[in-house]
Amino acid sequence: MFSNSKIAIIGSGSWATALAKILLHNVESINWYFRNSDNIEQFKRFKHNPSYLRGVEFDVNRINFYTDISAAIEDVDIVVLAIPSAFLKESMADVPVDLSKKFVVSAIKGIVPGDNLIVGQYLHQYFNIPYERIGVIAGPCHAEEVALERLSYLTIACPDVKKARAFAFRLECPYIRTHVSDDIYGTEYASVLKNVVAIASGIVHGLRYGDNFQAVLISNAIQEIKRFVDKVHPITRDIKSSAYLGDLLVTAYSQFSRNRTFGTMIGKGYSVRSAQLEMHMVAEGYYAAKSIKEINEEFRVNMPIAEAVYNILYENISPAIEIRLLTEHLR
Amino acid sequence: MFSNSKIAIIGSGSWATALAKILLHNVESINWYFRNSDNIEQFKRFKHNPSYLRGVEFDVNRINFYTDISAAIEDVDIVVLAIPSAFLKESMADVPVDLSKKFVVSAIKGIVPGDNLIVGQYLHQYFNIPYERIGVIAGPCHAEEVALERLSYLTIACPDVKKARAFAFRLECPYIRTHVSDDIYGTEYASVLKNVVAIASGIVHGLRYGDNFQAVLISNAIQEIKRFVDKVHPITRDIKSSAYLGDLLVTAYSQFSRNRTFGTMIGKGYSVRSAQLEMHMVAEGYYAAKSIKEINEEFRVNMPIAEAVYNILYENISPAIEIRLLTEHLR
Repeated sequence: MFSNSKIAIIGSGSWATALAKILLHNVESINWYFRNSDNIEQFKRFKHNPSYLRGVEFDVNRINFYTDISAAIEDVDIVVLAIPSAFLKESMADVPVDLSKKFVVSAIKGIVPGDNLIVGQYLHQYFNIPYERIGVIAGPCHAEEVALERLSYLTIACPDVKKARAFAFRLECPYIRTHVSDDIYGTEYASVLKNVVAIASGIVHGLRYGDNFQAVLISNAIQEIKRFVDKVHPITRDIKSSAYLGDLLVTAYSQFSRNRTFGTMIGKGYSVRSAQLEMHMVAEGYYAAKSIKEINEEFRVNMPIAEAVYNILYENISPAIEIRLLTEHLR
Repeated sequence: MFSNSKIAIIGSGSWATALAKILLHNVESINWYFRNSDNIEQFKRFKHNPSYLRGVEFDVNRINFYTDISAAIEDVDIVVLAIPSAFLKESMADVPVDLSKKFVVSAIKGIVPGDNLIVGQYLHQYFNIPYERIGVIAGPCHAEEVALERLSYLTIACPDVKKARAFAFRLECPYIRTHVSDDIYGTEYASVLKNVVAIASGIVHGLRYGDNFQAVLISNAIQEIKRFVDKVHPITRDIKSSAYLGDLLVTAYSQFSRNRTFGTMIGKGYSVRSAQLEMHMVAEGYYAAKSIKEINEEFRVNMPIAEAVYNILYENISPAIEIRLLTEHLR
């Protein structure tokens, strides 16, 4: 399965670039969609992505560049989605290609805003793709370390574990180990929630709480994530696996996580607006905090950490006060 | 219970000093044993421990200093042991005082070498103290952050949870929150194993593995710790609690952990002997790796991480080779 499959990558950020690098170990060529044609010209000229992981050199003869998603995916068997969740719906809106026979993999780690769907649900509902043809790529995996070829482990989730395994095989290379799982809900939600937790980590760091407290926060966070995913999608899973706990750790303990940086600025007293302006971007966890809050109105899981982040970011509650209240709920 | 109890602290290191600072919020005075009378003289003169946490000022009128353990503990109700496990047996050898009616708390986090007993077992076997009178203080808690009065959480374990709670109450102060547990075996073993894992963390860091791999290592480590403590002492526990997972995180992710530093030197190519000489001390995890190896000969738990550390430290296997083999066992 998938041994001669053609693959398209949708998105041109650092994670898309890392996945392109990984896949080109095993496939002859890839289709690669960029929103911006200038970037493609520069990519071709300098043989690297002009904006992300610029140290990674590509053989551009093995890349078919596209600025039209439909054209990029028309004749492929596998579509890897790696664009920010906030832009997913808009980007895919005019895609007339029938996706229902393809294997569509989310490398997005975000919630489709407005709809409050994880990417798998969105693909299923909007494109009629059966869940057996929907996959998720889960970390712990900073793209920057893929660029450096540091050993990393990926988990590929799909309800059809054979498909997960076949796709995972396309990702195996000297610095990538893979494992498979049937849990697309759990891996997606956990990877969304870890960004919210990373904001919390940053906030408490900004407020000058120390490493002792940080360890308590993360221990409580993985319990909170387990409560949530077990309620939303109750199957057997070990939340201590690297796809869940590992992904949380690499994000919350990283100085390079954008979500953590954003949180640190909030903790230090920046307003949400000025933190976003200062960073020239919006951290994924900012949207996730709102989506999770709304989704949890149905499930009513006890989520003090996600709640605190929401209150600080959207309800204008002082971080110092909100976190002091949070400390009462942790143990 | 314990509201008018007299307390003795045995040991003069950083953790002993942090505990003295905490306890003096709630008790009028403490008995405090130092091995070295010069240190006591200096402590009295400068009003701080001359060797550890020197920024913490004490009211020396509220401290009764001793250089004789028996005298220090003779008339107290609660004994807090905070000396390195390697010296425990030797230090306690000549203590003629009857300990069996006292509440004896281990703040040691180590295994009594030779006997391969956790401190609780040692106290029970050598001093006839019933388990209901043995307590354990578990982290996550760097002493340095207690000195800075950064909010920290301690878990007090005792099979008699009422006693745990009563003692925990003596530790509550503006920057210390406490919780209780009945699991002295699990908290002690987990706190021992986390030092072994911290050495592993250091080794892989020294070998230039990155954050992605570190997250996989720690996720696997907490699973390994769970397997071990569930086998050795099968009771209901949530290994994701801060006393277990949090304690692991604060140690393995800390740049200040002596065990991690020791591991980093090994990973960079120092011999065990030169790393120890360079550090002017022996990291607790060095002894723990051997004790755990020996203890596990009975229990036969699958412990690839502890095994790898043992092989590197005691069997002279190259860290690069041993860790490459380990990567095959992680997921």
